Amino acid sequence: MTGAERLSLNLITVDHWTLPEAVSRCAEAGLGWVAPWRHQYDDAAAAARTIAAAGLRVSSLCRGGFFTADGARADNRRAVEEAAALGAPVLVLVCGPPRDRDLRAARAAIAAGIDELLPFAVEHGVRLGIEPLHPMMIGERSAIVSLGEALRLARTFADPGIGVVVDAYHVFWDPRLEDELAAAAGLVAGYHVSDWLVPTESVLAGRGLMGDGIIELPRVRTSVEATGYAGPIEVEIINPAAPSLDDIVARFPDG
Amino acid sequence: MTGAERLSLNLITVDHWTLPEAVSRCAEAGLGWVAPWRHQYDDAAAAARTIAAAGLRVSSLCRGGFFTADGARADNRRAVEEAAALGAPVLVLVCGPPRDRDLRAARAAIAAGIDELLPFAVEHGVRLGIEPLHPMMIGERSAIVSLGEALRLARTFADPGIGVVVDAYHVFWDPRLEDELAAAAGLVAGYHVSDWLVPTESVLAGRGLMGDGIIELPRVRTSVEATGYAGPIEVEIINPAAPSLDDIVARFPDG
Repeated sequence: MTGAERLSLNLITVDHWTLPEAVSRCAEAGLGWVAPWRHQYDDAAAAARTIAAAGLRVSSLCRGGFFTADGARADNRRAVEEAAALGAPVLVLVCGPPRDRDLRAARAAIAAGIDELLPFAVEHGVRLGIEPLHPMMIGERSAIVSLGEALRLARTFADPGIGVVVDAYHVFWDPRLEDELAAAAGLVAGYHVSDWLVPTESVLAGRGLMGDGIIELPRVRTSVEATGYAGPIEVEIINPAAPSLDDIVARFPDG
Repeated sequence: MTGAERLSLNLITVDHWTLPEAVSRCAEAGLGWVAPWRHQYDDAAAAARTIAAAGLRVSSLCRGGFFTADGARADNRRAVEEAAALGAPVLVLVCGPPRDRDLRAARAAIAAGIDELLPFAVEHGVRLGIEPLHPMMIGERSAIVSLGEALRLARTFADPGIGVVVDAYHVFWDPRLEDELAAAAGLVAGYHVSDWLVPTESVLAGRGLMGDGIIELPRVRTSVEATGYAGPIEVEIINPAAPSLDDIVARFPDG
């Protein structure tokens, strides 16, 4: 795959569009893939038909995880079922924040939650992808905030049904990034791109178009691909001033 | 040292006060120390007299570093001279952001800048303290964003004249924190506290009073003290809604 055929639009980027509208526009723009979020459809099977009818495939479903929340077990099983219905090969796991100031307990709960979920995911043909988030998101979203931690966690299961999702925006700062990826053959389940803008004005919604920020994206991609990852690359730009699809295609994948 | 005698107010916390006002109030509140910033005085020797006259000592000077900026060499020498004039045992280094998207080049420039500065600092009796900042500050302030990287850098010099400054706010997220500190005997040159508020609403100025956030501060302090660090603990709360000195004393050091 080269060019836009490898481009998957993570649909949080265009969360202001309906799913049918997003799918239609992505197909017109020549994209090969989309990655929906669970709040963007009511019925996963109907969403799957909409996406397939447009000639697109699903690269991943966002998101499962939040293992530290009440009700996580049932909700994650539904997420796996929805991923299977969508034909999504990967369910992205945003693992959940600590409760009561206890990071170790959160990390243990995350490991236990994945251990419980993994056989169910494997049965459904859905790979789990642990996504380390940027450490600035630890309070609200994830106690897993470095690629090294995500890889260590994935390795504990020694199962091809689990890997990590590398988002350049979340991990580029890490001085250990290249060494971690050099030892991660076969463990990358997805790759996301956007850019880190300077000045950094928002903790959540300040992501930029590839090339507008400071991430050395070609270098990160080289390291990701050296692990053997050759699947779709998701563009995930969370920003109220969402770039146009034309600009995204023009800047894909490295700015 | 126990209680407020071990408390050093990092004066960025009360940057809306003049230096004489801050010093006077800290002395009244029973503090033993202050840590001024360079923009808070015109004449370091005069500032030193003001601080000494109030019966306070200087725990550190903020800040040197920014090795990736033009003019860094001369500015850092002035910072060392000012630290010596103030009687500050430590000059805190905020090492500077990458330029032109090149993190490796930034990290190399930082290492070279410290290598050049260290003999000058040793001559002046000032220890350099590399402060890893939170990874969300990489674009504007520092390419050194993890304690592990700061320690590796400090160790390359094999010189007691250089160490690291541990700020709980900047490093608490790191799953390697305790292991890194367990191997850092003698390398901690300072310890800073504040708290990580949830929700996280500001990249720079969202720090909270100890106990108001999610950092397990007693646990971090235990690890820091196990390295042998027994010096002053700086409270550094950057927030437009600065807490009162009474509240800071009441919550010191762990909330």
